[in-house]
Amino acid sequence: MKAFVMNEIGETGFAEKEVPEPGPNDAVVRPTKGLVCTSDVHTLHGAIGERENLTLGHETVGVVDEIGEEVDGFEEGDRVAVGAITPDWDSPAAQDGHPSQSNEPLGGWKFANVKDGTFAEYVHVNQADANMARIPDGVTDHEAVYVTDMMTTGFMGAENAEIPVGGTVAVFAQGPVGLMATKGARLQGAGRVIAVETVPKRQELAREYGADDIVDFDDGDPVEQIHELTDGEGVDAAVEALGTSGTFEQCVKVTKAGGTVSNVGYHGEGEYVNIPREEWGVGMAEIDIATGLCPGGSLRLERLLRLLEKDRLDPTHMTTHEFGFDEIDEAFRLMETKEDGIIKPLVEFE
Amino acid sequence: MKAFVMNEIGETGFAEKEVPEPGPNDAVVRPTKGLVCTSDVHTLHGAIGERENLTLGHETVGVVDEIGEEVDGFEEGDRVAVGAITPDWDSPAAQDGHPSQSNEPLGGWKFANVKDGTFAEYVHVNQADANMARIPDGVTDHEAVYVTDMMTTGFMGAENAEIPVGGTVAVFAQGPVGLMATKGARLQGAGRVIAVETVPKRQELAREYGADDIVDFDDGDPVEQIHELTDGEGVDAAVEALGTSGTFEQCVKVTKAGGTVSNVGYHGEGEYVNIPREEWGVGMAEIDIATGLCPGGSLRLERLLRLLEKDRLDPTHMTTHEFGFDEIDEAFRLMETKEDGIIKPLVEFE
Amino acid sequence: MKAFVMNEIGETGFAEKEVPEPGPNDAVVRPTKGLVCTSDVHTLHGAIGERENLTLGHETVGVVDEIGEEVDGFEEGDRVAVGAITPDWDSPAAQDGHPSQSNEPLGGWKFANVKDGTFAEYVHVNQADANMARIPDGVTDHEAVYVTDMMTTGFMGAENAEIPVGGTVAVFAQGPVGLMATKGARLQGAGRVIAVETVPKRQELAREYGADDIVDFDDGDPVEQIHELTDGEGVDAAVEALGTSGTFEQCVKVTKAGGTVSNVGYHGEGEYVNIPREEWGVGMAEIDIATGLCPGGSLRLERLLRLLEKDRLDPTHMTTHEFGFDEIDEAFRLMETKEDGIIKPLVEFE
Amino acid sequence: MKAFVMNEIGETGFAEKEVPEPGPNDAVVRPTKGLVCTSDVHTLHGAIGERENLTLGHETVGVVDEIGEEVDGFEEGDRVAVGAITPDWDSPAAQDGHPSQSNEPLGGWKFANVKDGTFAEYVHVNQADANMARIPDGVTDHEAVYVTDMMTTGFMGAENAEIPVGGTVAVFAQGPVGLMATKGARLQGAGRVIAVETVPKRQELAREYGADDIVDFDDGDPVEQIHELTDGEGVDAAVEALGTSGTFEQCVKVTKAGGTVSNVGYHGEGEYVNIPREEWGVGMAEIDIATGLCPGGSLRLERLLRLLEKDRLDPTHMTTHEFGFDEIDEAFRLMETKEDGIIKPLVEFE
Repeated sequence: MKAFVMNEIGETGFAEKEVPEPGPNDAVVRPTKGLVCTSDVHTLHGAIGERENLTLGHETVGVVDEIGEEVDGFEEGDRVAVGAITPDWDSPAAQDGHPSQSNEPLGGWKFANVKDGTFAEYVHVNQADANMARIPDGVTDHEAVYVTDMMTTGFMGAENAEIPVGGTVAVFAQGPVGLMATKGARLQGAGRVIAVETVPKRQELAREYGADDIVDFDDGDPVEQIHELTDGEGVDAAVEALGTSGTFEQCVKVTKAGGTVSNVGYHGEGEYVNIPREEWGVGMAEIDIATGLCPGGSLRLERLLRLLEKDRLDPTHMTTHEFGFDEIDEAFRLMETKEDGIIKPLVEFE
Repeated sequence: MKAFVMNEIGETGFAEKEVPEPGPNDAVVRPTKGLVCTSDVHTLHGAIGERENLTLGHETVGVVDEIGEEVDGFEEGDRVAVGAITPDWDSPAAQDGHPSQSNEPLGGWKFANVKDGTFAEYVHVNQADANMARIPDGVTDHEAVYVTDMMTTGFMGAENAEIPVGGTVAVFAQGPVGLMATKGARLQGAGRVIAVETVPKRQELAREYGADDIVDFDDGDPVEQIHELTDGEGVDAAVEALGTSGTFEQCVKVTKAGGTVSNVGYHGEGEYVNIPREEWGVGMAEIDIATGLCPGGSLRLERLLRLLEKDRLDPTHMTTHEFGFDEIDEAFRLMETKEDGIIKPLVEFE
Repeated sequence: MKAFVMNEIGETGFAEKEVPEPGPNDAVVRPTKGLVCTSDVHTLHGAIGERENLTLGHETVGVVDEIGEEVDGFEEGDRVAVGAITPDWDSPAAQDGHPSQSNEPLGGWKFANVKDGTFAEYVHVNQADANMARIPDGVTDHEAVYVTDMMTTGFMGAENAEIPVGGTVAVFAQGPVGLMATKGARLQGAGRVIAVETVPKRQELAREYGADDIVDFDDGDPVEQIHELTDGEGVDAAVEALGTSGTFEQCVKVTKAGGTVSNVGYHGEGEYVNIPREEWGVGMAEIDIATGLCPGGSLRLERLLRLLEKDRLDPTHMTTHEFGFDEIDEAFRLMETKEDGIIKPLVEFE
Repeated sequence: MKAFVMNEIGETGFAEKEVPEPGPNDAVVRPTKGLVCTSDVHTLHGAIGERENLTLGHETVGVVDEIGEEVDGFEEGDRVAVGAITPDWDSPAAQDGHPSQSNEPLGGWKFANVKDGTFAEYVHVNQADANMARIPDGVTDHEAVYVTDMMTTGFMGAENAEIPVGGTVAVFAQGPVGLMATKGARLQGAGRVIAVETVPKRQELAREYGADDIVDFDDGDPVEQIHELTDGEGVDAAVEALGTSGTFEQCVKVTKAGGTVSNVGYHGEGEYVNIPREEWGVGMAEIDIATGLCPGGSLRLERLLRLLEKDRLDPTHMTTHEFGFDEIDEAFRLMETKEDGIIKPLVEFE
């Protein structure tokens, strides 16, 4: 089968690989739609070290091609969404409520990290009963592919923020994860969502997904702007959806005493992520910092698919570009340069 | 001043009373709009025992007429919403996170219970800084009066239900509290809200406030209907918004193992509220039961007012009738008989 | 191999069975010590319906005899504790934080319910990596067998009670689960533990495990006694460790507004478990009801074994009787009659 | 009356002041015992800026001398403990569950910060009913003075750490707050408490208060030592009880994925408190950071006093030195130099 792989840091290409076979609890899925994630680009550029002949991609939906003998929740031909994170559900971390950390830190993240990813004609899914969900009839593949990472991760950012009903929240950066954090904040009952973003198309989508106010970096220090908007009070919660220490610092600075900073961003650089000491109340202002990694699991996927089925949101508006499977390197190139107003590129397998 | 009072069980009338004076931390408010609550009718019929010359009513907005010397958050002339529950915030129960239980069970409930209520030309508000909130400019008095009880209580029903994002919830009874529990479930990110109700106008409002499905008592056992809708699985959470043991029992029966029953209803009758033993998993199915009493406080009120300011909902659609202050006994009569499709009657003071 | 079985309701005997074989993720364990549980006696008497040729028992430690090919945390010869509850960790309920409810209500309870139990020469353990724990060197088999049910269940009763540090708690009934709830309350920082019990030996053990006060049924209504002890205030939390509606009712009556009733008891009889309406604050006193079923899993077992390793408690004082495997029917007889001051009978396999 | 004051940064002295008078909700207390806190020394050295003629001290017990007319929980002559933090319980932050942040960040901290502290012949206590607790008969003043800050703060460190029963925890630094975090970890059911400390007397006390292991800075990198002790796994939770960025960093490094870092230390220096990016799992290892400021309130104080009444611990072993009120500057000198193995100096007022 054909697979889109990372040959070494910075170099991609198509490779011919064996079609994977499922172990007793596993499945093999034939992708129909996929999405390219900025973290794929990070991986390609060495964020997690050298990889050789590793299939890229982790956001996919498709059709079940084969199942292991112990799998009883699925049949061949089922349309399914596959979690970007596929935990070992019997690991101690999963037992402890942290499946994404199964067996080691970030251990639930397997695709395009420790095993071949999803940009291939066939994809191997471990613990299939627990890591896939059937797509309801009324939901398209294009919609469904967003539950696998963008919706589950972005919503998690809002859930971890512990926003009180009617409370205020600032979401820093409105890439696809930030946009879904904005929508997630609305789904958690936020009374005022302040989206921090400078790109017009992203600002527009932020409004669509529920932002009440837009703060533009280009109009001055976002910390000052948010304090002005909130009469100097700050927000109940801030969501970091970019992954830089500077943005994280701003999140602490806009959060009121007793509030929460929810980190979603992947911090790719630097020795430290910095907490500003004074604004953190010298450690005593009860500004807690919550973190998380993309929640997976069939139950989570089903619940998110239900939101699509019931028309709570349309994530496909984040799709700015579409590519065939064999044009995928162009998608990677655009995700890297962020040219052409790209937000999220869809990959069509058929 | 004129006050609408309960003279004895079952008998109301207008009385002439002294205008109240504020203590150092208190305020006196001149009501502009009020709402009649079914619990007022319960009180009138003796649910909390005999009362004599007690002013009725607990849902009100108005204008600050006078403040005590220690009050610093308000001025005369401010438009304010007054919480139906006005806790003693320095009591041990409030320190413990249960302000509505301050000093004794249900001790935060003062209006028309242990002190004069709000159907009067002037109303005394204890701990005014903590128990009132300024109404934002864009919010009408009519909208604002809904935060004082219906929204805070109904939303609490949904918050206590701990509905997962995309999860399923059944809300039993769509009176004004149930309707706000339905809306609250949507504000908590529910993926499917099943409203149980038989009155057409209430069903219609339930849909407006976010119900995905309506289950009608008249079409058969709601437990069976809900199991059918959910493929036998039951719901993640059920909200009891009626206050009968029978409905409570149904809530337990439709909730899946590991789910939550959230009680909002005021149980006015019977020696026991019954948990069905088998469906409760002989005590071991991890179906927890949460309860609460109308959360008050300036912070809560402000957050709910923010939801109105930001157009998250329009509660005034629950207002089916309007009365002048001197027609208030007719409002009570209708709330008792539920004639004329009444849901919530507004009382206009000016 | 020899197994102690239930032939039909009310009738036990020894049977000859095939030695079980492990599936890929399973293990077979050769028991060294076991404990008889009152719930075994309930089962024998038909509490969960008719069973035929079903091996009884669910509390066991032993030696790993054989492992499936996918098991990588254990080797033959390892001394292990086996959870009484052995969840399917990849089930939706486990993903949702309720492993004991996996696949169906109480679905994690397999031994002596839906598969052969542990009173046999060999025992089959599903998902062995996740459902067993290695016993540390300093911990005896006799100590370790208590983690499999009594400690995990009793402690859960205290954990679910959400006792504040220095708070007050009443534990109703001091059988082995109640005794471990008493100890668990101390391990949660309770400032005052009131144990309700009438049997002198159990009262004595309650004191050993940390009860500050003993309330004796025989000295009058325990509700009144507890109110007297607490100056009429009631307790922050009550634990029901008996499983009768009457005791449950008393738990609600002694719990203060804003407190928690934690149910551990297996309610074996009656159509309803009754909540006393008035003392429950007509549904609004914020007395929540928490429930649970014996938490299993390797992580939980390891943490409890650590408490034994570090001498936090000695559970073997609950062992009042010891029997050989072939005397096990006498152990059952005593557990039924509660003769001879029996608390917990140990079964020795070697 | 005589008061021990800070005249300017770095300079103390005794001053003659007016005896304070209680407002309607307040009390005036005559101290009997006090403790000097390292944070007093920080204040003296300018950590919170310039202060002039400000009475120092915030840990005190004494006798009620006078009460305001609205105070109904106390009488003159009552022996009371006064919280170091005396929140405004009706403030929005208190309503939100963060009383220590009332009205502004750290706003509950009034003594020796925004009003005169407790090293004086008479002390003014705001919202007396909510901010003092009666000392039970069996508890000495010397014991009781420890609840006002050391016990409540140290225990909070353990509570915020969310240690699972039988879990592992590392407590960094065994000053009086760290020692009480160690004891607090035991009161939360920790299965293994690793205390990091280098001073022998403090190590000895750490063992007394429940540490299972001592890690000595002088024996090498504590991060490596803790990883060795835990087979490379790290701990479920780490408590920072020193207040340096370096220690904080070590806390993150020893905490396993999915665990919690609980900050108690007052971070007095530097622009940032640094989170080590990689060990924090690039923001995605689910290592949450919890913070807090000394919980106050009558309920909290009563619960901690109950622990003393019931002999759960003896905090007086931390008292290494005793001084008369007029020798208090010597106590300050020693707290600064940490000479003579000082841990906590008691000040006797009578």
